[in-house]
Amino acid sequence: MNKKELYQLILKKKSFLCVGLDTDIALIPKHLLAYPDPVFEFNKAIIDATKDLCVAYKPNVAFYESMGVKGWESLEKTMNYLELFKDEVFTIADAKRGDIGNTSKMYAKTYFEWLNFDAVTVAPYMGEDSVTPFLGYHDKWVILLGLTSNKGSADFQFAESEGLKLYERVMQRAQKWATEDQLMFVTGATHPDAFSNLRKIAPHHFFLVPGVGAQGGDMEQICQHGLNKECGLLINSARNIIYASGEKDFDDAAGKAALELQSQMVKFLNGKVAE
Amino acid sequence: MNKKELYQLILKKKSFLCVGLDTDIALIPKHLLAYPDPVFEFNKAIIDATKDLCVAYKPNVAFYESMGVKGWESLEKTMNYLELFKDEVFTIADAKRGDIGNTSKMYAKTYFEWLNFDAVTVAPYMGEDSVTPFLGYHDKWVILLGLTSNKGSADFQFAESEGLKLYERVMQRAQKWATEDQLMFVTGATHPDAFSNLRKIAPHHFFLVPGVGAQGGDMEQICQHGLNKECGLLINSARNIIYASGEKDFDDAAGKAALELQSQMVKFLNGKVAE
Repeated sequence: MNKKELYQLILKKKSFLCVGLDTDIALIPKHLLAYPDPVFEFNKAIIDATKDLCVAYKPNVAFYESMGVKGWESLEKTMNYLELFKDEVFTIADAKRGDIGNTSKMYAKTYFEWLNFDAVTVAPYMGEDSVTPFLGYHDKWVILLGLTSNKGSADFQFAESEGLKLYERVMQRAQKWATEDQLMFVTGATHPDAFSNLRKIAPHHFFLVPGVGAQGGDMEQICQHGLNKECGLLINSARNIIYASGEKDFDDAAGKAALELQSQMVKFLNGKVAE
Repeated sequence: MNKKELYQLILKKKSFLCVGLDTDIALIPKHLLAYPDPVFEFNKAIIDATKDLCVAYKPNVAFYESMGVKGWESLEKTMNYLELFKDEVFTIADAKRGDIGNTSKMYAKTYFEWLNFDAVTVAPYMGEDSVTPFLGYHDKWVILLGLTSNKGSADFQFAESEGLKLYERVMQRAQKWATEDQLMFVTGATHPDAFSNLRKIAPHHFFLVPGVGAQGGDMEQICQHGLNKECGLLINSARNIIYASGEKDFDDAAGKAALELQSQMVKFLNGKVAE
């Protein structure tokens, strides 16, 4: 999916919601444990309940990896299921990978060939040759960490050198490596004051915005300063949607939670985005 | 394994060699493809041929991940095999993970509980709370990226802020988060001139040094400036050892390549390290 297609999808669904599939077997409803693959059953039901209300899904790879080989099987099944809706949803592997060239190439193979994600999150510390192996795929995206949502973002990302904070340097330099159809940035919702500046650095790029909800970010502020003419935002919500209920009605509850966010998004889209 | 035990192991084996298990099914000898799990057969033979000559093994997780579920099975089997030599080798998951707290906790579970590695490499961009979840395990280690071996290390790691380059800031600050028994740094062999400085910043920590061999780093220079009184270096070699021959004699050839490096190490140990 390229940038234009993603934007068309956002207009069609009137949503720029990304549902985070941070599926933890310890937190899913107990009745699902009777299934051969409880994690996949959970994901499938969440997808069925939310797919008309969101434009993207973001499985958090750590949650699957931590369950061993079975976890990777659950992720593979989830991606096979999402493949059925390939034109209706954008898929993001939240993996935060990045290594020397020959190794990043292997990670790209994992997410873009084996699992056929549209995008993968990548950590920038190792620089250009750790990112470029992910850029050799048609209609596939790198979502590079810019300014992250966690408390530790303050440890290094604000370190200023030659007039540029580290996250600004990362976002400026990465634009030399990739086109706007290949590159997004992670910009945490917990830094609402930074969004005007983030938009100055990357006016036309999509931002993947985690941290709304459980981590405390405020959607209204983010939209006010973060939206651009082609929307330019994918706002992620995980725990607030997928764990809206811990009982048998978990999928209905997830649908309602997604609808609530999507309803808020409609007004921002109407106000800000060119149709 | 704690720091003292690792140092004792180095003295006993007269080696600070780490063998990188960057096992690529496209590069292993063709006769192995007849086995049900060629990657594991290869690793097992490499381990048998080198385990008296090295103190550590470092599977590069990307290579296994890229092979799908089967790849994770090969990694699991490799770790089960290494478990037989638990007191004789230190095991490192080269994974370059790091994410917000609840997610890093899942990665820690993967490498320290499921696969029972002694150490995992972690990327520092997201700061303290992305690293600390790995520090809650007895005798388990974080190996944090300091100055990496690749060309892209120049993109951000040298950015200077308030008198400190980014890699210096990372290495200084991380020492507040963890003891010398929990924390090592990745310091690339392709920056030999930086090693005196790296030792000033972290005089007593172990450094994991990739980049000798295929990437061009020179062991003599690294040892001259990098060794400390408890050795303090784990020098990694992957391709030069594991692909020393592409034929049926690959394990013998790997043993010979490891012996060559270990023989060089003996003289540095005799000259520099207190027994």
